[in-house]
Amino acid sequence: MNFFPLHSCFALGLLAAFVAPTSTSDEKPVLGFNQEGATHQRSLEAQLDSLLQKDHLREWMKRMAARPHHLGSAYGKENAEFIAALFRSWGFETVIEEFKVLFPSPRKRFLEMTAPEKFMARLMEPEIKEDSTSGQAGQLPIYNAFSVDGDVQGQLVYVNYGVPKDYEVLAEKGIDVNGKIVIARYGVSWRGIKPKVAAEHGAIGCLIYSDPREDGYFQGDPYPKGAWRNEFGAQRGSVVDMSLYPGDPLTPGAGATEDAKRLSIKEAPTLTKIPVLPIAYSDALPLLRALGGPVAPQDWRGALPLTYHLGPGAATVHLTVEFDWKLVRAYDVIAKIRGSERPDQWIIRGNHHDAWVFGAYDPLSALVALLEEARAVGELSKSGWRPKRTLVYAAWDGEEPGLLGSTEWVEAHDEELKKKAVLYINTDSNGRGFLSLSGSHTLEKFINQVARDVRDPEKKITVAERLRAHRIVKGSPEDRKEAKERADLRIDALGSGSDYTPFLQHLGIASLNLSYGGEDGGGSYHSIYDSFDHYKRFGDSGFDYGIALAQTTGRAVLRCANADVLPFEFTNFSSAVEQYVQEITKLIDDMREETAQKNALINDKMLEAVADPTQPYVIPRPEPPVPYLNLAPLKNALVQLQESTKQYEAANNALTTSGRHLPPEAQKSLDEILMSTERALTEDTGLPRRPWFKHQIYAPGLYTGYDVKTLPGVREAIEQRNWQEASEQVERVAKTFDQFARTIDRATTIIKSSAPSK
Amino acid sequence: MNFFPLHSCFALGLLAAFVAPTSTSDEKPVLGFNQEGATHQRSLEAQLDSLLQKDHLREWMKRMAARPHHLGSAYGKENAEFIAALFRSWGFETVIEEFKVLFPSPRKRFLEMTAPEKFMARLMEPEIKEDSTSGQAGQLPIYNAFSVDGDVQGQLVYVNYGVPKDYEVLAEKGIDVNGKIVIARYGVSWRGIKPKVAAEHGAIGCLIYSDPREDGYFQGDPYPKGAWRNEFGAQRGSVVDMSLYPGDPLTPGAGATEDAKRLSIKEAPTLTKIPVLPIAYSDALPLLRALGGPVAPQDWRGALPLTYHLGPGAATVHLTVEFDWKLVRAYDVIAKIRGSERPDQWIIRGNHHDAWVFGAYDPLSALVALLEEARAVGELSKSGWRPKRTLVYAAWDGEEPGLLGSTEWVEAHDEELKKKAVLYINTDSNGRGFLSLSGSHTLEKFINQVARDVRDPEKKITVAERLRAHRIVKGSPEDRKEAKERADLRIDALGSGSDYTPFLQHLGIASLNLSYGGEDGGGSYHSIYDSFDHYKRFGDSGFDYGIALAQTTGRAVLRCANADVLPFEFTNFSSAVEQYVQEITKLIDDMREETAQKNALINDKMLEAVADPTQPYVIPRPEPPVPYLNLAPLKNALVQLQESTKQYEAANNALTTSGRHLPPEAQKSLDEILMSTERALTEDTGLPRRPWFKHQIYAPGLYTGYDVKTLPGVREAIEQRNWQEASEQVERVAKTFDQFARTIDRATTIIKSSAPSK
Repeated sequence: MNFFPLHSCFALGLLAAFVAPTSTSDEKPVLGFNQEGATHQRSLEAQLDSLLQKDHLREWMKRMAARPHHLGSAYGKENAEFIAALFRSWGFETVIEEFKVLFPSPRKRFLEMTAPEKFMARLMEPEIKEDSTSGQAGQLPIYNAFSVDGDVQGQLVYVNYGVPKDYEVLAEKGIDVNGKIVIARYGVSWRGIKPKVAAEHGAIGCLIYSDPREDGYFQGDPYPKGAWRNEFGAQRGSVVDMSLYPGDPLTPGAGATEDAKRLSIKEAPTLTKIPVLPIAYSDALPLLRALGGPVAPQDWRGALPLTYHLGPGAATVHLTVEFDWKLVRAYDVIAKIRGSERPDQWIIRGNHHDAWVFGAYDPLSALVALLEEARAVGELSKSGWRPKRTLVYAAWDGEEPGLLGSTEWVEAHDEELKKKAVLYINTDSNGRGFLSLSGSHTLEKFINQVARDVRDPEKKITVAERLRAHRIVKGSPEDRKEAKERADLRIDALGSGSDYTPFLQHLGIASLNLSYGGEDGGGSYHSIYDSFDHYKRFGDSGFDYGIALAQTTGRAVLRCANADVLPFEFTNFSSAVEQYVQEITKLIDDMREETAQKNALINDKMLEAVADPTQPYVIPRPEPPVPYLNLAPLKNALVQLQESTKQYEAANNALTTSGRHLPPEAQKSLDEILMSTERALTEDTGLPRRPWFKHQIYAPGLYTGYDVKTLPGVREAIEQRNWQEASEQVERVAKTFDQFARTIDRATTIIKSSAPSK
Repeated sequence: MNFFPLHSCFALGLLAAFVAPTSTSDEKPVLGFNQEGATHQRSLEAQLDSLLQKDHLREWMKRMAARPHHLGSAYGKENAEFIAALFRSWGFETVIEEFKVLFPSPRKRFLEMTAPEKFMARLMEPEIKEDSTSGQAGQLPIYNAFSVDGDVQGQLVYVNYGVPKDYEVLAEKGIDVNGKIVIARYGVSWRGIKPKVAAEHGAIGCLIYSDPREDGYFQGDPYPKGAWRNEFGAQRGSVVDMSLYPGDPLTPGAGATEDAKRLSIKEAPTLTKIPVLPIAYSDALPLLRALGGPVAPQDWRGALPLTYHLGPGAATVHLTVEFDWKLVRAYDVIAKIRGSERPDQWIIRGNHHDAWVFGAYDPLSALVALLEEARAVGELSKSGWRPKRTLVYAAWDGEEPGLLGSTEWVEAHDEELKKKAVLYINTDSNGRGFLSLSGSHTLEKFINQVARDVRDPEKKITVAERLRAHRIVKGSPEDRKEAKERADLRIDALGSGSDYTPFLQHLGIASLNLSYGGEDGGGSYHSIYDSFDHYKRFGDSGFDYGIALAQTTGRAVLRCANADVLPFEFTNFSSAVEQYVQEITKLIDDMREETAQKNALINDKMLEAVADPTQPYVIPRPEPPVPYLNLAPLKNALVQLQESTKQYEAANNALTTSGRHLPPEAQKSLDEILMSTERALTEDTGLPRRPWFKHQIYAPGLYTGYDVKTLPGVREAIEQRNWQEASEQVERVAKTFDQFARTIDRATTIIKSSAPSK
């Protein structure tokens, strides 16, 4: 699923960060290992590298992208069986776990403009001769999964990206979408936010189109000449309200097994409230051209050759969507190699296998890297090596409609996972360019070390060095400064949009999400043109970055699997949390000042003085002033957290410097505490109004969808101007900080109290 | 001429500034008058207001826009005679002064794309039935005046706005325009800069097109549905190198009288070096679509429905332009009312009358306001009132091709003007919205007072209050702060692009340039659709802002004409100059840091690490480090200047507070010194490489064309990294500051030493 960051992946700060080495790899320490162990580990990793073969990636991608393989399709099942067979052939204990999940597919899709002139939307991506699979049967048509059924007719209003701020602008122009159908462009927010916000404002239907500004000829030559979305290309995708909970809408919090207790479809809260349909720009163009009303603000205008108007006016549309609300089987492939010493510590590595159609890029580009990594691990294992801890490789089904396969598996195995899962390493798609990394900050130092040991395929430097260079050359002044001065490059926090969400945010399992990209832009995302033919021309054609990904995630897996002590580290985490607390402080201070300024403009009649009397303009009402919140509990808890992480670091450094290591029993106890640190960041009751989300540091935004909100309880309460709740959440997050600090303290005690042996 | 600021006139900071009053007008002091005089003056101004009639504006605009009236046209002459007749009928001593100036008009215009496919450019704006004059004979076709003749053929390269920075970007992509034809879009720089910079880089021809991003459907509905430039609309305009000198290219520095000594056309340095042609986007589209090479950077892309490429590649064009290099007569209408007390002090007020075609907006919208102002002044004069000082009203010819009429008149009368001119008040075009004001900062306080006495036609506040509100609501944080806190709103410095240039920058006559606008956007600039039909639908249809303009400039004229002492004031000037010195300091500091940073990126191989190896990229060479310059002379001279202005203010305040005024002889002597203060800001030898430009504080930029460069000698030397010259210019500007301060000191001495009488 993984919202492909298009042209602006770096501008959006989605990239992660690593450090440039000067000494050779072999001399450098490896977290969790002593010097001898590190040398041994590096030699194992060199063996891993030597086993990886690009041809496998190409061959598997071509095979799995040969036919449509969405959730519930025959070829999706075949792919799952193919993957399972591969794992078995490499020596993994492999099962296919099945779940029964709701997956609507279209019965009827109809969009007509009825006035000021008739226009019938085409709603299809045609076959292209340069794209050999584009004409195949069995493709899912263009639609948004988990839209409700609907047959609506009304005036059309253009709502830009369809986020809450856009409706404020409309209100100032005197435009109300109540009873109307909105047309939003893709971008800025996750797509599911658009119909959600539209419905909250009374709209009766929602169209989402791909404007060539973000996703088409403005960015680059359209397919098949270039990589970018052409006039007929449209973006399928789920609009299920994942900010409430992902996974099967009928079985929140529980695995969707055959006999699971299910909500009725009517009861499912994550379905949209109004019908939604995505369209290509060739279908949007006549509609937008027919819009009346004021000219849209400058930053609302896309790249279509017309004057963007807001509506409403003559333009009236008739939208009908009707779905087959069937339950289908999801096939998760789960493949294990049992750990030799600590089999109840699981290192989980996953990528989905389902696609919207052919999915060469999304998800196969990264899935084939996972498979090659697993094959190499299997080879190592056959040659006598055994991981200390258990490795669990997963190929998820049903990610695209809403993380169905991963969520149901996590929910079905929640108790076992809470006990055994060390971390979850996710990938979703991959391309040519720069390492992108996000995840739990307790793993920031660990993954920085990994990235300092992987060579960039295009340059004679490591992927960490290249990413650092990228931040120094292209980053904001703050990013640039940090990239120059900080030992570790900062990683981004995780929001949602891929299979890490149930692990991290539901269960509190430390997670990482990795990919390469930024040099292979293109607009095939969730289209039938996300094909092998497209990828081999415009993606990571040589599969070099597929290999780099396998080297990166493979190292991460093997280091976690073999470490004497799990490679968690907490000073980077406390640095991240300190930043979030500062952001929260600034957020409310800025809101206070902005609100006061805006109120002054209203009260001093400045807005009135400036308004053009020939244009509709409704002067906004003043907002109540923003109060001062008591953030002291948060800041005091942060100080305690920082103190605890320092103590742990000191104890750990002393141990390392001494050259000694803990006795095996103490190592195991320490591991168990370290595994539980991320769990200590969760609260069982979850976030306000969405109890499924239990993590108190990271959550997808209620009004962003994919993008993370850090310290979400506090941050979203402030954003919603709910001061009472904000104060309650401050207390709650402060308690979470305390809980985390006490867990770290237990780890420190073990190190200090165990008689270390040489 | 006056580059119409399109959508971004406020963003570009072109607007000026005034202050909100709380007391009623009648109580407030008026610069240059005592309390009694101020009351009398305000009553005169009320009479002026009562005489102004909107119907005249409409009627005159319709009449003068009825046929094409460019320089050298029959109707242009008729308009001049019509204007002269009006002035005479109102009691002005009126003459038409003739000059003989070079004005090429097209014999041949031909543009063909020869590869990859044939396309013949249409190069014409068709008749539109909604626009009654658009089909008339006698229109000047689409062309750029003072392009050289040429017949060239070559590969095409897209150069964005065609400013020097754009060629740096091309160089980094390995693209050289040498021997090629460039296509630039209108915007950012004045148009004449584009062929100049192209030629400096070896290009052999230059096309300039109107991209709908800046000037077409992206901004608003195209004509005739809306006000904006349509697919065939093109922008005529001069490309004469006005940054060297404006006016007749053959008679630099001298009036182009019948027998003037003339350069040959080959000798004229202000003609372009390569042929140039402006085109509409419908003619540019096939060319841009055919371009190969890399995709243009994001901020180079316009609003056409294509992927912008840089070229070169298959796209090859053949461009031919050939002109009739004839001398034509320019008719300047000069109308005077002789001053009763100080006839040798001239208050000059002007606006051009020539247009590119029909020119309803440019220049008639403001010319008709000038005429109505003059009619009212004539009425006042007939009713017994006489100005103390002489009023000179001017309607210039030949402004569009390069300020020909005004420049030749100024050059022909330079000695007299240096003695007699008090100030020059210019207008050029006018619309609905906010007051825009720029000029000499010695007049900033004066014009702020004027704006505090004019009512906005749309709102129940003054135009000063409305402009202040605009800056507070829409300005940058700095603008906003200043607009809230500073008593006077800051006015902008003058660059070039209208008839104030010879007055201010050649002779050192304090100048103002005024207009209203910002609510009546549109794209008729320099097109045949700048018509009465267009203006009455999309301009200041009711001519209410035409009246506001007449009230504003009329007040300015009458106050200068009647003041006991001329209303110059110097603390606002020293505040402006202080800001410029700070900017210069920051400019060189920023350049030093940026150069060091960029060199570090190059030397540390950061750019190399980030570059996509599949894309052409030439790593730039390091620049020599930026030295520290000795700015002390400038700063010391500034301190002295500030001291002198403070002394003058103190003396003047003491006089005002005493309620007494100077004896008439002392007033006259003081006036003469005050008139000369702007002259004290000039140096006879002029700016480096452009001796015609003598003002040391304000000049149009060598590489901006219209936009001002303040402290131009120092600033441009720094921008060009010519450190030797920068140091010399620092000394020179410091001397200018001294010269100015000494002039102020003389004024202070007169106030202090004259025995003031009650």
